[in-house]
Amino acid sequence: MVPMATLTVITNLKGAVTPDPARPWAVDFIEDAAIAAGGGKVLWTGPRAELPARFQDAGVVDGQGRWASPGFVDPHTHLLFGGDRSHEFNRRLHGVTYAQLAAEGGGIRETVRATRAATVPELVALGEERLRAYRRKGVLHLEAKTGYGLELEAESRLLEAYARLRSRGWSLDVTLMPAHDLPQEFAGDPDRYVAEVADSWQPELVRRHPGVASHCDVFVEKGVFTPAQGRAVLESGRRLGLKPRIHADEFCSTGGAELSAEVGAASADHLMFASDAGIRAMAQAGVVPTLLPATTLFLGMKDYAPARKMIAEGCRVALASDFNPGSCACIDPLLVLRLGCLQLRLTFEEAFTAMTLHPARSLGRADLGHLHPGASARVLLWDVKHPLDLVYWMGEAFLPAIVEPA
Amino acid sequence: MVPMATLTVITNLKGAVTPDPARPWAVDFIEDAAIAAGGGKVLWTGPRAELPARFQDAGVVDGQGRWASPGFVDPHTHLLFGGDRSHEFNRRLHGVTYAQLAAEGGGIRETVRATRAATVPELVALGEERLRAYRRKGVLHLEAKTGYGLELEAESRLLEAYARLRSRGWSLDVTLMPAHDLPQEFAGDPDRYVAEVADSWQPELVRRHPGVASHCDVFVEKGVFTPAQGRAVLESGRRLGLKPRIHADEFCSTGGAELSAEVGAASADHLMFASDAGIRAMAQAGVVPTLLPATTLFLGMKDYAPARKMIAEGCRVALASDFNPGSCACIDPLLVLRLGCLQLRLTFEEAFTAMTLHPARSLGRADLGHLHPGASARVLLWDVKHPLDLVYWMGEAFLPAIVEPA
Repeated sequence: MVPMATLTVITNLKGAVTPDPARPWAVDFIEDAAIAAGGGKVLWTGPRAELPARFQDAGVVDGQGRWASPGFVDPHTHLLFGGDRSHEFNRRLHGVTYAQLAAEGGGIRETVRATRAATVPELVALGEERLRAYRRKGVLHLEAKTGYGLELEAESRLLEAYARLRSRGWSLDVTLMPAHDLPQEFAGDPDRYVAEVADSWQPELVRRHPGVASHCDVFVEKGVFTPAQGRAVLESGRRLGLKPRIHADEFCSTGGAELSAEVGAASADHLMFASDAGIRAMAQAGVVPTLLPATTLFLGMKDYAPARKMIAEGCRVALASDFNPGSCACIDPLLVLRLGCLQLRLTFEEAFTAMTLHPARSLGRADLGHLHPGASARVLLWDVKHPLDLVYWMGEAFLPAIVEPA
Repeated sequence: MVPMATLTVITNLKGAVTPDPARPWAVDFIEDAAIAAGGGKVLWTGPRAELPARFQDAGVVDGQGRWASPGFVDPHTHLLFGGDRSHEFNRRLHGVTYAQLAAEGGGIRETVRATRAATVPELVALGEERLRAYRRKGVLHLEAKTGYGLELEAESRLLEAYARLRSRGWSLDVTLMPAHDLPQEFAGDPDRYVAEVADSWQPELVRRHPGVASHCDVFVEKGVFTPAQGRAVLESGRRLGLKPRIHADEFCSTGGAELSAEVGAASADHLMFASDAGIRAMAQAGVVPTLLPATTLFLGMKDYAPARKMIAEGCRVALASDFNPGSCACIDPLLVLRLGCLQLRLTFEEAFTAMTLHPARSLGRADLGHLHPGASARVLLWDVKHPLDLVYWMGEAFLPAIVEPA
C-alpha cells in the first residue's frame, strides 16, 4: 500500500489521451479526466466523476485545463556526436556529391574525427543540452547509440558519457554500435573490422562499462555491412547479454528485415525498402519496425517506409527521430508524429501509439508509453483543445508542461 | 538628407545575410556586418570595418552577436477564415473520403459556414492572432486573400477586416478571391457564379472598399473553374485596377500556368503539375511561380512542384505558406524554407531569396526582401552561428528578434 500522504491526483484536465497496453492500436480519449498517482506510478486514470473514493484526500495537482498524455519514447537516436555538418549540407544542395565530400575527408569521417577529439565532460555537456531539448518537446525516455567513435577508446568514452548522463537522472537506454560504419583504419577490410568488433571490442566495452548498454546495433546496408557481417556483430552482442537492434533496408533491400527476425531483434530500423517477406518475418518474430520519417524528409527522398503494409501484416510499428549530424539533424517529436500521419498515412491513434507504447515495448519498458495503472507518473500536459491539434496545426511548436508526482 | 539625430547603426552582428536585388539569385553573407538606417530605411549595409564616416555619430543598436536578415515575405495566405477542420483531418486519415465529408456538409463548406457567421471584430481578432504568429516567426509582410465568404456580404466583411488590420499597422497586401470555390447557392452552375463575381461582386466590393485589395485571384482546377472562367474573373479584376494572381495546376495540369502568362499575372501559385510549356510561358512573361511545399506535405502527396526546372527556364520562384484550414493549417516559414531546400532541391541561397526578394517583387514591393539601400529597416536577428543552421537544425523553432530603427 502506498501511504495516503504520497498520493496525488492530477485534475482539472480537459482530457487524458493514452494507448491501452492491452489492445495494440487502441487509444483512449478520456474527457474531463483525472489521474491518480503514488510512488511515482499511475494508480488510476479515468473520468474525474468516477475517481475512486480512496483518492479523495490525495494531494491535488492542477492540470490547467490541458490534455494529459504519457511522455514520448524515442527508440532510435544517435545522441552523442561531436561537431555538426551544416556547411556540407548546403554544399550537397549545390550539387557536390557525397563521394566528393568523402574524398575530402568530409561526411561521417568529419563527425568521427570530432567525436574522437571530444572529452567525456564535453560529450556529457552535449548530451545534456540535447536531452533538455528532447525533454522540453515531450520526450521523457530515449534510446541512445554509440557509433561515432569507431575505435575502442572513443566508443568507451561514449559509454562513459552515457553512464554519467544516466547517473544524473536522465532516462535512457544505451545501444552499443561500433559497427555503425567502417572506420578509415579498416578501409577495404570490413571482415577484419567485424571480427575486431565482435571478438574483441564488444566484450571489452561490456567488461569496462557493466550494465550501461542494454542493446547492440549494426548498419546492414549495401556498401556498409552485409547481413552475414551484421549477424556476427549481433550474435557477439547477444552472447554479452545485449538485445539486438538493426539498421536495415534504408537505401535498398539487403535482407536486413529478414535478419532482424532471424536473430530475434527487439527492433529493425529505417526499412524504407524492406521486402514483403521481411515484413512478414518481422510480424511473426515480434520485431518492432522502427520508422524514421524525418530522415526521409531530411535526405530529400520520397520513399517513406511502407508503414500501412507493416500494420496490415500485424507489426507493432514505432516511430523515432534518428537524430544524427548527417541524415537527420532534428529533435522534433511533433514533426515525427506529423510525418507519421501525413506521409506514412497512419491515423492519429496509430502514430501516437507508435511514439509511446510500441517504442517502450521495443525497449522492454512496460511502465512507459501509457497512463494505465503501473505506468510512470511523469505526465505531459498539452495546451490544446484536442490532441489532434498536435498534428493538424502543423506549424505550431507546442511545448508540454511536465508533471512528476512523487 | 536624413538628420543625424535619426540615424541608427545596428552593429555587433555576427553577420548579415541578404539577397541582392540586382542579381536574381545571389545572396551575400557579410560577416561582422553593420547596417545603417534612417527614416525607416536601410541606408548602408556592409562589413563593419567599412562603415562610412557619416554614420559615426549615429545611435547604436546592439545586434547581440546575431545574424541579421530581411524579414520573410509570404505571398500566399488565406489569413482569415472561421473555425478549423482538425476532426475532419483525422477522419480522412481513417479513410473517410473527401466526397463523403462534402456530402455531410463538411470540407470547405464547413469553413464557409463558420466564416459567414463571423463578425468583423471576430475576424479582426483571428487575424491579429495569426499575424502575431507570423511576425514572431519572422514574416514581416504577407499577402492575404478573401475567399471563404463566397457571398457578397461575407466577402465584404473579410475586406473590412483586412482594412482594419492594416489600419492597426499590420503590413499586408490584400487579394480579392470570391472565386475560390463554387458556393452551394450556385451548385451546378459555375458560369452563372463567375458572371456574378466578375460583373457584379468584384466591382461592388472594390467600390465599397477602395484601396483595400490590390490583387485578384481565382482557383483554376479540374472540378473548380476552367481557364476560360478564370480569365473572366481576372479580367474583371484587372479592369478594376487589381493585378491578377492565380491558383493553378495544383492537382493536374489544366493550363493554369499558361493562363497566368497570357493575363500577365503577378504570380501563379501551386503549380505541382504545371506543363513544360506553361513554365516557359511564365518565364517569358515574368510571372513569379509561387510554390507551396507545406501544402504538398500536409496533403500527404509526394509530387512537389518542379522548382529546379522553373529556375532552369529563368523563372524567379517564390515560396509561400498557403495557410488555410483544409490543405495546410500551418504558419511556419522555417518549414517552408526547409522544404524548399530538402524537397524542392533549392540551394540555401535560392530558397532564402524565394522567401524574401522574389515574393516581395511579386507584390510590387521593391523595399522588402533585402537589406540593400532603400529597403525597409525592419530587420530580423537570428541567434545562429550561420544562416544555414536555420535549415540544417530542422527541428529547431528558431524565433528571431526584430529591430525596427526609426
